[in-house]
Amino acid sequence: MLQESSVDSSGSRFAPLVVLELASDTKEEAIAWLLSRIRDWQQNGGAELLVEQLGPGIGVEEKENPNMFLVGASMQRLLCGAEDLGLFKECTDGSMRAFTFASKHNFKDFKGDGDGFLSMAECQYVIKHELDTLRAKEETNVPGYSHAKLYPGKSIIRRLLSKGILIQMFPLHENEELKRLSFSWYKKVKVSLQPLDDIRHYYGEGQALYFGFLEYFTFALVPMALIGVPYYLFDWEDYDKYVVFAVFNLIWCTVILELWKRRSASLAYYWGTLCRKKAFEEPRPGFHGVLGHNPVTGRAEPIYPTSKRHLRVYLVSLPFVLLCLYLSLYIMMIYFQMEGWALSIYDENPTFWTHILLFIPSIIYAVVIEAMNLIYRYAAEFLTEWENHRLESSYQNHLVLKVLVFNFFNCFASLFYIAFVMQDMELLRQSLATLLITSQILNQFMEAFLPYWLQRRRNKKMIRKIQKRRLYEEKELPLVEQVRLEADMSTYLGTFDDYLELFLLFGYVSLFSCVFPLAAVLVVLNNITEVYSDAFKMCRVFKRPFADPAANIGVWQLAFEAMSVIAVVTNCALIGMSPQVRSYFPESETQLILCTVAAEHVLLGFKFILTFLIQDVPKHIQDKLARLEFESLEALKKKLLEKSFPPKVIL
Amino acid sequence: MLQESSVDSSGSRFAPLVVLELASDTKEEAIAWLLSRIRDWQQNGGAELLVEQLGPGIGVEEKENPNMFLVGASMQRLLCGAEDLGLFKECTDGSMRAFTFASKHNFKDFKGDGDGFLSMAECQYVIKHELDTLRAKEETNVPGYSHAKLYPGKSIIRRLLSKGILIQMFPLHENEELKRLSFSWYKKVKVSLQPLDDIRHYYGEGQALYFGFLEYFTFALVPMALIGVPYYLFDWEDYDKYVVFAVFNLIWCTVILELWKRRSASLAYYWGTLCRKKAFEEPRPGFHGVLGHNPVTGRAEPIYPTSKRHLRVYLVSLPFVLLCLYLSLYIMMIYFQMEGWALSIYDENPTFWTHILLFIPSIIYAVVIEAMNLIYRYAAEFLTEWENHRLESSYQNHLVLKVLVFNFFNCFASLFYIAFVMQDMELLRQSLATLLITSQILNQFMEAFLPYWLQRRRNKKMIRKIQKRRLYEEKELPLVEQVRLEADMSTYLGTFDDYLELFLLFGYVSLFSCVFPLAAVLVVLNNITEVYSDAFKMCRVFKRPFADPAANIGVWQLAFEAMSVIAVVTNCALIGMSPQVRSYFPESETQLILCTVAAEHVLLGFKFILTFLIQDVPKHIQDKLARLEFESLEALKKKLLEKSFPPKVIL
Repeated sequence: MLQESSVDSSGSRFAPLVVLELASDTKEEAIAWLLSRIRDWQQNGGAELLVEQLGPGIGVEEKENPNMFLVGASMQRLLCGAEDLGLFKECTDGSMRAFTFASKHNFKDFKGDGDGFLSMAECQYVIKHELDTLRAKEETNVPGYSHAKLYPGKSIIRRLLSKGILIQMFPLHENEELKRLSFSWYKKVKVSLQPLDDIRHYYGEGQALYFGFLEYFTFALVPMALIGVPYYLFDWEDYDKYVVFAVFNLIWCTVILELWKRRSASLAYYWGTLCRKKAFEEPRPGFHGVLGHNPVTGRAEPIYPTSKRHLRVYLVSLPFVLLCLYLSLYIMMIYFQMEGWALSIYDENPTFWTHILLFIPSIIYAVVIEAMNLIYRYAAEFLTEWENHRLESSYQNHLVLKVLVFNFFNCFASLFYIAFVMQDMELLRQSLATLLITSQILNQFMEAFLPYWLQRRRNKKMIRKIQKRRLYEEKELPLVEQVRLEADMSTYLGTFDDYLELFLLFGYVSLFSCVFPLAAVLVVLNNITEVYSDAFKMCRVFKRPFADPAANIGVWQLAFEAMSVIAVVTNCALIGMSPQVRSYFPESETQLILCTVAAEHVLLGFKFILTFLIQDVPKHIQDKLARLEFESLEALKKKLLEKSFPPKVIL
Repeated sequence: MLQESSVDSSGSRFAPLVVLELASDTKEEAIAWLLSRIRDWQQNGGAELLVEQLGPGIGVEEKENPNMFLVGASMQRLLCGAEDLGLFKECTDGSMRAFTFASKHNFKDFKGDGDGFLSMAECQYVIKHELDTLRAKEETNVPGYSHAKLYPGKSIIRRLLSKGILIQMFPLHENEELKRLSFSWYKKVKVSLQPLDDIRHYYGEGQALYFGFLEYFTFALVPMALIGVPYYLFDWEDYDKYVVFAVFNLIWCTVILELWKRRSASLAYYWGTLCRKKAFEEPRPGFHGVLGHNPVTGRAEPIYPTSKRHLRVYLVSLPFVLLCLYLSLYIMMIYFQMEGWALSIYDENPTFWTHILLFIPSIIYAVVIEAMNLIYRYAAEFLTEWENHRLESSYQNHLVLKVLVFNFFNCFASLFYIAFVMQDMELLRQSLATLLITSQILNQFMEAFLPYWLQRRRNKKMIRKIQKRRLYEEKELPLVEQVRLEADMSTYLGTFDDYLELFLLFGYVSLFSCVFPLAAVLVVLNNITEVYSDAFKMCRVFKRPFADPAANIGVWQLAFEAMSVIAVVTNCALIGMSPQVRSYFPESETQLILCTVAAEHVLLGFKFILTFLIQDVPKHIQDKLARLEFESLEALKKKLLEKSFPPKVIL
């Protein structure tokens, strides 16, 4: 299964899994020390992995980094690592259980030495975990680097990363499997579902869940798109009719999120991540503080008081975010003023040039929005870094929250203003259509084709360079070149931007699609191309990312649910404003508003009840989980009974 | 620690913990079979407990039930049972860990054989669990009762209970400790906190959490009462001023519930129930269905399809509840009509008799409400029983939900009607005061003094009867009489009614106290007397209940939180209706309503954010839990490392 390689420097063969790239000027003693620690026995506190230097490439005329290392491990080491990580695998009886080396033959697909039992992504995840938990012993600093301080228990790799000695650590692609995957994923022309299991096999659960969600979201939109088309064709000018569509929206956005939770739990169960116990999370590389002792592990670790972090979050970050929101609203108001001003000029003097002038404010506003999003994103990253979160998960949550709130405001504030302050449904429809279509085109371009084009240019350069030296008969690049090529590829920064895009699309559809029924159709089309472009960029543009054994889509579930609550409120307000509903309350506006508010409260209440009624995990999976739990309790009881001896007196 | 007894029938001494009362006409063979199964070794599927028949009492002239049995166990059996149940106890290092017999000397207060290590309540809980899980082997029916079917794995005690062969099973009181507890709890005159740890020691965690919540709720009300008194004294007629109070209410009801979660987690941690793994729940005694196999345990068990239960819940119970709510509203409308009618008669002809007539509708309505609550309670119990829930917890949740919704409507509908339809704040204040004061007096009477009086009469009768036969010098009753006396005491039916009462009081305070600031003062007074009357009835009126190792107040937390959401909405509406706020929007009522609704949405959003921000478990306890988790992971890893052998090749 793993690609065989013959590395020049040594005669032995091993399957390289992960690449470590050290700075080209790293001192010899530091390299020797690192390699010895990686190769050392586990009993001595080493990682017991195989590691080798990458041989020189062909294009040596350019300055190539000589300090690239391939890391691998024996199959047994990998299996022990998998047990250590508590990976869940399928047993011969179809249930999912934590893998243990002792009971290895109870697991499905375990044959012989276990070759092919773990996927390459899992092997790479094991190696990453082993490297990450390689800890300093008595060393006070990295040999040769007196400023790279170490203390007993500090993760060596994280210190090397934070000091810039280790440039990057990435898993290798597997060309054969990648070809197969990309063929079944995006090269086939026939319409079919995505190969989620294969994606999970190659990229891990986090990626697969994203593509699963993308697919699910697309299918969930189909009924809406189907209703939207006739609506659009026959009722285009009949604003009155949007009430039915708003009611549909309202139910739709609640139900699909609940059902996704069930689907996600199903997927995570069969991928073995639903009930995997997470290992204790290490502090993230950038975390700093006074050296103290972690209250949980007892290990030496930087300590940063929570109260200080709270002060930073609530006294600096929160006001900053609020200020940015205010700025965003302010710029929106300027846009509307400019639009009004352009309109008045056109009304006064309707020539060709003044007609063109009408478009200027929108264009300026769109550009400003994009620029603000970009600047804000950097500011948010800087601030969240500065908040000094101990855990990567906590860092991510704070970053997502900041970016989400601002993007929501930036993208939707103008629509809300048009809908509820200007109450101009015609303008709302136009703005929505423009926003949807332009953002779609921009996104696809920025996300996939631009990086691909850049990558392609780089690849071509390299291939040409190689061909200058030797003429290869085989099309395949040799491993050494392949590794250097991959090291130059862009790093995939996670699913953040992809989810953010889906989040905004979900917002467009659930909030305002009742006034622009074609929105769902556009989003479906967008999602279909998104699948292809995302698949393409994963396979061809980026370095392979490490697998991320996620059990759900995490904080995004919450974000989508918050959006669905906002959607209920918005749709109720739109219904209340519709001429159709207004006609029922001809004399009293107060009564109309009170009825709308009452209906909205009932719907929100109903939504929360629905959240309770629809179980997050399907019954048959609950049963399976309960069965695992029950079995472990029974096993404990049995052990107890065997241990205990009979009491002395029996009446 | 356990009370010593000398039982007539056998020479041996053992500490009786639990009493089993079989029907007086139980067949000999059934008794012999049951006793042998209880005494049998665990290896043979028995319970390995000590059991003895209770000797005849003194008052034999009356028909006494001869089939009463005392159950106890050796200390070692109890300790093994505690390990089996996964009871958490405090270690010598102050942390809470699951008790294991092997590591018994690591636990605090473990001395010698372990006498006094488990509280009597814990011993009784162990015995109850052992009896409950005593299962049929090959028997097809209870000997001598061909209609009492058994199948392998069926709990014997539950079958005997459901067939009426076993009348009751209850734990014995412990007179010395009860005296000490009741002295420190309610007999002392000095003001002090309740002895929660002692209550937990004697009655278990469920009871202690109820009293803890009652105490917490009372303290939480104190600031409100302190603000309420000057409000009442100086602003009595100034309805304008209630806005400040409503705002205070709104924040108060959110914050106290969040803080209670933290306090409850703290208590549960130190009582060892926070992270105890629950054993697999058995079907409740009344559950019936076709014999099949449980998908989780694989044991034979009645199976009842979930779809059928859903049909019963949604097609019968739900419409019934809605019908009852409609009826309740209908009767409320009749009450208001009667009131209007009485008022019109009085206005026409204001004499003494017509003045009296004014009170008639309120009195009739109050009586009807009480009667409806009572009838509905029976109906709800019947329906929930008929829904055939497999688990006691699910039965309880459905019952609580039904009763809660109806009681809420019955008690608050008239207040909502007065507040928002009639908009008569003066009447609202009067109704609230009347409702609070009368319900308080009625409750205290019905709950404690009436049962106590009945119990006292019964006790006196018995003591007189005994004194007729012999003249006892000692004041203490002999064990035999004590057991028979306790068997005759009423059975405590759980904390349901107590929580329901608190829930309604919480409703009165959080919903409408801004118009009647004395409400908090009244509720504080009520709670203080409630502590005494509840403590009194627990100690003197009822049989001792089995401990219930609860980790939180369960479904009631949810109920109180739902009430606090309703309180936010109600208080916002009251604020919007206040003349003070109205004066800001002199020309436009629409704008007033829109502003109120907007403010309400912001507050609701803020409330939910607050729920996320305030962590449910205090940080230091989270750390302790994480430490336990981490230690078990590390132990596993160490075991793994010892097991694994070095790989063959090292580069």
